[in-house]
Amino acid sequence: MSYQALQQHFVKISHFQHLSAITQWDQAAMMPAGGNDARGAALAELSVLIHQLTTAPQLGDWIDVAENEPLSPTEKASLVAIKRRWQQATLLPEKLVMAQSLANSECEHAWREQRTNNDWAGFKTNLAKVVDLAREEAAIRADAADLSRYDAMLDIYEPGMSSATLDALFGEVKTWLPDFIVRAEARQESRNITHPQGPFPIAQQKALGLAVMKQLGFDFNHGRLDVSAHPFCGGVPTDVCITTRYDENDFMKALFGVIHETGHARYEQNLPKAWAGLPVGEARSMGVHESQSLFFEMQLARSAEFAQLLAPMVKDFLGRTQDAAFSEQNIYALNTRVKRDFIRVDADELTYPAHVILRYEIERALIEGEIRVDDIPALWNEKMQAYLGLSTEGNYRHGCMQDIHWAGGAFGYFPSYTLGAMYAAQEFAAVERVVPQLRGKIAAGDLGELFDWLNTTIWSKASLLATDELMVTATGEPLNASYFKAHLERRYLMGE
Amino acid sequence: MSYQALQQHFVKISHFQHLSAITQWDQAAMMPAGGNDARGAALAELSVLIHQLTTAPQLGDWIDVAENEPLSPTEKASLVAIKRRWQQATLLPEKLVMAQSLANSECEHAWREQRTNNDWAGFKTNLAKVVDLAREEAAIRADAADLSRYDAMLDIYEPGMSSATLDALFGEVKTWLPDFIVRAEARQESRNITHPQGPFPIAQQKALGLAVMKQLGFDFNHGRLDVSAHPFCGGVPTDVCITTRYDENDFMKALFGVIHETGHARYEQNLPKAWAGLPVGEARSMGVHESQSLFFEMQLARSAEFAQLLAPMVKDFLGRTQDAAFSEQNIYALNTRVKRDFIRVDADELTYPAHVILRYEIERALIEGEIRVDDIPALWNEKMQAYLGLSTEGNYRHGCMQDIHWAGGAFGYFPSYTLGAMYAAQEFAAVERVVPQLRGKIAAGDLGELFDWLNTTIWSKASLLATDELMVTATGEPLNASYFKAHLERRYLMGE
Repeated sequence: MSYQALQQHFVKISHFQHLSAITQWDQAAMMPAGGNDARGAALAELSVLIHQLTTAPQLGDWIDVAENEPLSPTEKASLVAIKRRWQQATLLPEKLVMAQSLANSECEHAWREQRTNNDWAGFKTNLAKVVDLAREEAAIRADAADLSRYDAMLDIYEPGMSSATLDALFGEVKTWLPDFIVRAEARQESRNITHPQGPFPIAQQKALGLAVMKQLGFDFNHGRLDVSAHPFCGGVPTDVCITTRYDENDFMKALFGVIHETGHARYEQNLPKAWAGLPVGEARSMGVHESQSLFFEMQLARSAEFAQLLAPMVKDFLGRTQDAAFSEQNIYALNTRVKRDFIRVDADELTYPAHVILRYEIERALIEGEIRVDDIPALWNEKMQAYLGLSTEGNYRHGCMQDIHWAGGAFGYFPSYTLGAMYAAQEFAAVERVVPQLRGKIAAGDLGELFDWLNTTIWSKASLLATDELMVTATGEPLNASYFKAHLERRYLMGE
Repeated sequence: MSYQALQQHFVKISHFQHLSAITQWDQAAMMPAGGNDARGAALAELSVLIHQLTTAPQLGDWIDVAENEPLSPTEKASLVAIKRRWQQATLLPEKLVMAQSLANSECEHAWREQRTNNDWAGFKTNLAKVVDLAREEAAIRADAADLSRYDAMLDIYEPGMSSATLDALFGEVKTWLPDFIVRAEARQESRNITHPQGPFPIAQQKALGLAVMKQLGFDFNHGRLDVSAHPFCGGVPTDVCITTRYDENDFMKALFGVIHETGHARYEQNLPKAWAGLPVGEARSMGVHESQSLFFEMQLARSAEFAQLLAPMVKDFLGRTQDAAFSEQNIYALNTRVKRDFIRVDADELTYPAHVILRYEIERALIEGEIRVDDIPALWNEKMQAYLGLSTEGNYRHGCMQDIHWAGGAFGYFPSYTLGAMYAAQEFAAVERVVPQLRGKIAAGDLGELFDWLNTTIWSKASLLATDELMVTATGEPLNASYFKAHLERRYLMGE
């Protein structure tokens, strides 16, 4: 049967992806710097192999034949996922892929220094090439999928999502967010926050992180925690490697980073074993993945109830049983501070969407050809003023040069972050409806039912359902951003 | 040019070997247990790929053509190494390789429990299959290389070595070793040894190990130290991963293990960059590799002069400045204790060759078909009695079942250990002739000239020369075991 042949072929590819994932994690978390060039060459060779296998000439025929074979519903979904993977890989001419690889890595490499030097003039020359090639890519994808150019890029990361939907979702958020932020800030002004005084030794922070991971159900037989410059969740479902970085003066950064990555990790660790190695057995989308990390970090771990669970652990592991900064109330206050600022990755839960919406609007216009690279700084400044009341005039470093995504040619990725936050709020509201006394159970560390629900409705489904179907099955309706707003209101305007 | 095509092809293969080496190291040193099955499947897929690439149909023609191309001497040596690699890979029919892979892993797997249970009857059934297949392999190799069966197996690990040479070398050792051991033991009886009392915290032991590695020139920009159940030197030349295991009651085990692996590591780290990825750029042989680890561990680190360097470091890192057990004299005495015992991996420098010669004699007879698996225990006991005066009757666990090599089908490997010790003694004698005041410099930690000599004569030569040529170039003569005997006499009968 052709379907069987396809299945075997993609499981074979997954073995090479396994090696790629582990050696990439090693490169970021373990490898000494001197190993970099040889590692890069080895990984590039593996990428070429994986691309060759994913575009092998026989696959098109196999897919045609398999589409007429009698398949179970799961096999049908698997075939759809395989076909999508194959199409994505075969769509782009090799020449374009090579040109992008060169331009993107040149732009990324130079960006590291240009950002430090606030060198927009240098950066924009490289970025213009990256954007030109991304537009070419978008045109080819748009043609094949009968979508607009930007929608075709969006589809890489969030299948089924469209800019029409995003315009509606984000447009609505824009009507209330700026005022909401001002009100939340005003409300927090009167709060008394005590800032914990370091140093907090790394060994203690690590032990605390491991204990919280354990509390959150991380499976240490299939994963580990290490350190890297840019925290991420890597590895493979049988060996999920999450990383963090420690700041001796601020233990909250590493701790909430670990909680965030633990959300990603539990999704990966609980993907269905029966579909291991098949595209249908992978996580649904970037947005759904982010919904799990944000469910853990924002919905769960920054809640007032989780602060009750966390405070004694933090006191205990950091040896600060008598320190007022470690009270439940203060930890909750620290976890929910709102502060308008320039940098997306440091933004709080409430201001974060403003950063994403701004990027979405600019990158969509860029890819659709409505603006040019030269227009970015002015637009950035205008939108930062409008959404967060901050000026980035002349400040490229903390403005449009802060993120690596565009330099690397990843247009269409940013919306995933806020989609994830919206999915997460909707999921939390759903589980709250079915688990009695959920908030009390969180405070007591009794998280079994919560995780069972996530496992049943999200993790174990992998890519079996489209995202809309997944949300309907899990929560009773497709994405509905009012849960996100309600969550923010409860936490930032009412007092959770 | 065909040679160029071959070179590119083998560099490509080396990229996949890089991934294999790193993920295997990760499996042993980092991976949680639950990751094992998926890792095994991924590594098996990679092995198949590497085998396919090494036996690609066009290679035979390319080699034929390349042999008539105008090549530099280095390219000629490279072609010889490539041809050898290709021949080794193409020689065995796939069916035999598969059967061996199954039989060996079945035997190895069962051995772990059978050894604990002293279950020779269970083990010998599996081992008989392994031996039958190894004989088949040996017959094919013997035919192709016009060697005896055992010599053809030996050639895998120690190219150019023969059982005729080993018979002469080891035969001579046998004439003096048993009596030598008795005399050395008698001489040590009157020595006063203080055994250091633990516990020695692992963090302190690790810091000590890292400091000694630094002293020994390990390049931490291209390597690291970790923990695994069975210490080894893995990774790739640009990222050499050595491992150890810590015993809180005996810091010497980990320390000398680290020194041993550092010898392997410096060889790998200093292989010529220009030939990276080519067979000619790899270490010469198992014996020469072992000569580097034993040069570091035995010739250098267990010397009286190195004890002068080591004692203050040990005192300092383990916080025992006043402890008599940490005097230079006592550390030297600990490092040179002779004790006849059953287990090869725990054997001291002097009794070690007895363990190897015994195995050599048995495995050669096995592969040549002169004895059967059933004959092993009696022969083992007879030879242990003769060489070390110990009985292993009925004690399979500490006798013929102690090592994994035969269970895994590795016949012809054991001689490398003692060949390495012999090469190392000859190398040390040679460097002592050219570096004035070498022993004083060792005591002072002034090791630069020593390492320069190793780099120039051994490390940088990779596989450019045959082993005999390598030894002639480095030391003025081919392997000459009298240096080994002289070294042992000086250390164990005269007082270094």
